Amino acid sequence: MTSGGDAPGMNAAIRAVVRTALYNNCEAFGIYGGYQGLIEGEIRQLGRYDVSNIIQRGGTILKSARSVEFKTVEGRARAAQQLAEHQIDALVVIGGDGSFTGAKYLIQEHDIPVVGVPGTIDNDLYGTDSTIGYDTAVNTAVEAVDKIKDTASAHNRLFFVEVMGRDAGFIALRTAIATGAEAVLVPEIETDLTDLEHFLEREYNPKNSSGIVIVAEGEKSGGAYTIAEKVAQKHPDYDIRVSVLGHIQRGGSPSQFDRVLASQLGAAAVDALMDDQKSIMLGIMNKEIVHVPFNKTIKHTKNLNPELVPLVRILSV
Amino acid sequence: MTSGGDAPGMNAAIRAVVRTALYNNCEAFGIYGGYQGLIEGEIRQLGRYDVSNIIQRGGTILKSARSVEFKTVEGRARAAQQLAEHQIDALVVIGGDGSFTGAKYLIQEHDIPVVGVPGTIDNDLYGTDSTIGYDTAVNTAVEAVDKIKDTASAHNRLFFVEVMGRDAGFIALRTAIATGAEAVLVPEIETDLTDLEHFLEREYNPKNSSGIVIVAEGEKSGGAYTIAEKVAQKHPDYDIRVSVLGHIQRGGSPSQFDRVLASQLGAAAVDALMDDQKSIMLGIMNKEIVHVPFNKTIKHTKNLNPELVPLVRILSV
Amino acid sequence: MTSGGDAPGMNAAIRAVVRTALYNNCEAFGIYGGYQGLIEGEIRQLGRYDVSNIIQRGGTILKSARSVEFKTVEGRARAAQQLAEHQIDALVVIGGDGSFTGAKYLIQEHDIPVVGVPGTIDNDLYGTDSTIGYDTAVNTAVEAVDKIKDTASAHNRLFFVEVMGRDAGFIALRTAIATGAEAVLVPEIETDLTDLEHFLEREYNPKNSSGIVIVAEGEKSGGAYTIAEKVAQKHPDYDIRVSVLGHIQRGGSPSQFDRVLASQLGAAAVDALMDDQKSIMLGIMNKEIVHVPFNKTIKHTKNLNPELVPLVRILSV
Amino acid sequence: MTSGGDAPGMNAAIRAVVRTALYNNCEAFGIYGGYQGLIEGEIRQLGRYDVSNIIQRGGTILKSARSVEFKTVEGRARAAQQLAEHQIDALVVIGGDGSFTGAKYLIQEHDIPVVGVPGTIDNDLYGTDSTIGYDTAVNTAVEAVDKIKDTASAHNRLFFVEVMGRDAGFIALRTAIATGAEAVLVPEIETDLTDLEHFLEREYNPKNSSGIVIVAEGEKSGGAYTIAEKVAQKHPDYDIRVSVLGHIQRGGSPSQFDRVLASQLGAAAVDALMDDQKSIMLGIMNKEIVHVPFNKTIKHTKNLNPELVPLVRILSV
Repeated sequence: MTSGGDAPGMNAAIRAVVRTALYNNCEAFGIYGGYQGLIEGEIRQLGRYDVSNIIQRGGTILKSARSVEFKTVEGRARAAQQLAEHQIDALVVIGGDGSFTGAKYLIQEHDIPVVGVPGTIDNDLYGTDSTIGYDTAVNTAVEAVDKIKDTASAHNRLFFVEVMGRDAGFIALRTAIATGAEAVLVPEIETDLTDLEHFLEREYNPKNSSGIVIVAEGEKSGGAYTIAEKVAQKHPDYDIRVSVLGHIQRGGSPSQFDRVLASQLGAAAVDALMDDQKSIMLGIMNKEIVHVPFNKTIKHTKNLNPELVPLVRILSV
Repeated sequence: MTSGGDAPGMNAAIRAVVRTALYNNCEAFGIYGGYQGLIEGEIRQLGRYDVSNIIQRGGTILKSARSVEFKTVEGRARAAQQLAEHQIDALVVIGGDGSFTGAKYLIQEHDIPVVGVPGTIDNDLYGTDSTIGYDTAVNTAVEAVDKIKDTASAHNRLFFVEVMGRDAGFIALRTAIATGAEAVLVPEIETDLTDLEHFLEREYNPKNSSGIVIVAEGEKSGGAYTIAEKVAQKHPDYDIRVSVLGHIQRGGSPSQFDRVLASQLGAAAVDALMDDQKSIMLGIMNKEIVHVPFNKTIKHTKNLNPELVPLVRILSV
Repeated sequence: MTSGGDAPGMNAAIRAVVRTALYNNCEAFGIYGGYQGLIEGEIRQLGRYDVSNIIQRGGTILKSARSVEFKTVEGRARAAQQLAEHQIDALVVIGGDGSFTGAKYLIQEHDIPVVGVPGTIDNDLYGTDSTIGYDTAVNTAVEAVDKIKDTASAHNRLFFVEVMGRDAGFIALRTAIATGAEAVLVPEIETDLTDLEHFLEREYNPKNSSGIVIVAEGEKSGGAYTIAEKVAQKHPDYDIRVSVLGHIQRGGSPSQFDRVLASQLGAAAVDALMDDQKSIMLGIMNKEIVHVPFNKTIKHTKNLNPELVPLVRILSV
Repeated sequence: MTSGGDAPGMNAAIRAVVRTALYNNCEAFGIYGGYQGLIEGEIRQLGRYDVSNIIQRGGTILKSARSVEFKTVEGRARAAQQLAEHQIDALVVIGGDGSFTGAKYLIQEHDIPVVGVPGTIDNDLYGTDSTIGYDTAVNTAVEAVDKIKDTASAHNRLFFVEVMGRDAGFIALRTAIATGAEAVLVPEIETDLTDLEHFLEREYNPKNSSGIVIVAEGEKSGGAYTIAEKVAQKHPDYDIRVSVLGHIQRGGSPSQFDRVLASQLGAAAVDALMDDQKSIMLGIMNKEIVHVPFNKTIKHTKNLNPELVPLVRILSV
């Protein structure tokens, strides 16, 4: 099952789960439409050819959806009943934080072995160096900003570019370094507008240079538009534009990194279930597959790499 | 000189102008920053190596800018003086409508031979089948919508995607056909909201299908956000999202089509000047290079291909 | 049916044929595996959802194959019988020269209405300005050469890059102009090795510059490796490399141009059949859909654009 | 200085070295053309704008070249003299194994502080989890194989695709997993042709399936062509093709991963020199910057990830 926001590489993970299950002489079933689909019995058996030629595709062939019903005891009881009726012994959930919380309840209330695979572009899951989809999303954002730099540079403009990341600045931070941006604003660090303005006064000159400021969706002082407006009020001579990259960051063919990661974690998820594990997320830490209890990954917060934060400014000077 | 909004392929055109000039034993100069740069004498000689390795790059190495001053008689007099001081005998302007209007005044008031090369992503120039940058911009929009389709399809969502085109629906129309969109809304055709809603009722089902509506920036009834809101009010069950592609459409490495077109038109521009032509835009019509008087290209409006409009609906059913 | 070598955009054409047929209240069937599949009855009905989400994919969902059997009277009789058994009244063949020749026999011997849609990356079909797949193939070749230029330039190397085109230099010629190559060698023009060597002596210096020569697969004097060797013998100081782009040029997501062209021609093919046409290829000439008798497109040869040939040298100097 | 084969991300590393040097109030110089350029005094000062807008470009603005002369004591003496004449106190070499060996001699004979930054697509450097250019090269190979899969699948063909890696199978192994290849052949593991044939007999059927075998350049039993021929002899019914990806894997715009890695390592190189380090390579291990003595990185060999090797077969079944 895939659950929550879709991420590039989810299909590679589905393929790995199915193929590894078959390799271990298990049967594999796909649940369509996340927890809601599970409740409604949208379940079909998957053979090896059902997952052929999907490793390179964005989105998820199993689709995803929100489920209000699964948040109720009754909803989860219906879900458990569906699994029983289809003689499904164990479940792999590919998704994020919220999906794993749902899984925890299902385990506690119905003793169903569930393991999780981290699939979200935001990379905001504790216990894994990288989530499936993150590398691709940053590549997509970087390619988009490269294009914006062409036009920024042609017109000596200052662009505020908003990238995804409602709660975390992972995408923003790497995008900023990788595009040579002048500054980056993330939810984890309070925005110092005065400092930003002083910095821009030194680094950006509407007569002969351009500038890029990367703003994470969840930046706390109001987001790209608000900040751009404040800067514009103080500097009416600046040629300012705002661009919100939006949903393009969720789609697209996964990068090799995400495909390999998804293949490893999907295979490890089946291995873990065969080994009687449950209530864990499979993660990758220092190149090793790790088992992270759902409890831990849900409660803890992953921090930005502190060495990367100052690098943006050092390299833009 | 490049002028107006930048477009992918402008660098290929600059290269073609410079190399063809040198091939004909002329000297070549680049004017930096459009008409404003001309007025301020931002002029440097360009040798063959100055335009090496730029054919594949977006933006414009000559930069571009608006000039209020050039709209005055005095400004144009200063521009003419700069040309005289640099012993420049003729001028190639790569840009759009507004740039050619400026050129016309320069010709009338100072008898300077100027020819134009159509460089704009919008394709809204009469007298040429295609403008430099248009093919690339549509490819960029199509690739972005392909990504959005991944996520639309994973969540059964209805997306309204806004593409560039303030006055013309060229980008929107081709993007719609090339992405298999359900509908397209363009400035040239009045939006019939009731018809759109009926169509969506038949074609989009939030339980099991997704949908894409392409909206040109210049759509007359309010744009992507307004229309999305109206549809949402009538159909609160729809899972609607809006995405504005924005400035990414201006940048990026030009497609082969735009590079070849730019090479042909840039070379033809120099040929035309050597042949004592002036006040014309170089265009391509039915694979032939054509000379289009500035007057004509400024006054007339290019129409959408009428055969493409109905195709969107036929192929989405 | 798709037949012959696959080309990007074939899926877009299949989608257009199916959807237009359904729009006209006809049933649509897919024949899998070209003429051989037809003979063996590999035929399945296609509904609108069978062609959903394929417009952006390379290859062909209907697959393709050679058929020795179809070249015999008996083979074609079996093919005709299969069509009769499946109550198929008319056939659209998406492919090239050879596919249309086969279609001609089927029409003559069994009076089955067949029309053709030009699908081949080589662009070597008389009667249409462009074939489906050509634009994408050139874009793919150009992107590959852009990458090779990075490394050529870093090491001051001279690269001979072989692109597809067994009988025609269309891909080679546009690739050469679009990448700013020093020279292009095509089957249509006899290679003058002495002239090439003199040119390279002037333009390439292993101490401080790099060079790219684009060679079409079907070049007559021996191809990229042979020519590279001859040049190397005369100039042992040159740092020469050969790269054969190969099959990557056949695949990949089609460009917007090929998707729109395929959509137009696929729709026009159904329209033509509804209008009692047969034994014609649908083509595009000067932006208009045209009907080209199979006879004509098979017998005649399309020529290279004579204006583009000298442009390579003018712009590389 | 960049040295050895070029790799995507070298420009990002150059930028990071220059900008970090300036940030620390040092002057920065670029040495053009590797060790040979150093010997010949091809040295120019670099300001912050000289490295603007290069982070996204493939190749290396400092170029690279082999130097026979630098392998001699006399050559290195001339190199040291050039550094002295230009008052250059310390050197950053971006390259691979061979480049670091050269650096070691320079340090030993002339006591010049040199540190290394690992720049090579092959990833075959001990002491760092990843080398600059490796991620991009794998992405390029994967995108190429995706395209080849389109055509393989359309024609039920078996492709042997050769990727770079003269001494190491890193690129091959990740490419194989990321493309869902049937098998991978690398220099580190002896090719068992009988096993491969048995495997293909089970997994590939020229009537209805396709297959991809990834072969590293340095595979020991003869490479892609030889193996393809042997398989073809035993299975004349197979529809076999060979594709050598070649030099496209060296070029192209670097991925976000390589740009960030290059930025980190380039900055760390300057930090290390300021901290009086020498004769070390900067590497990244488990997300931490590490100092690896040249001695170690030159002597030791990095191994393939043993968990990835069996994954190819498990997931292809």
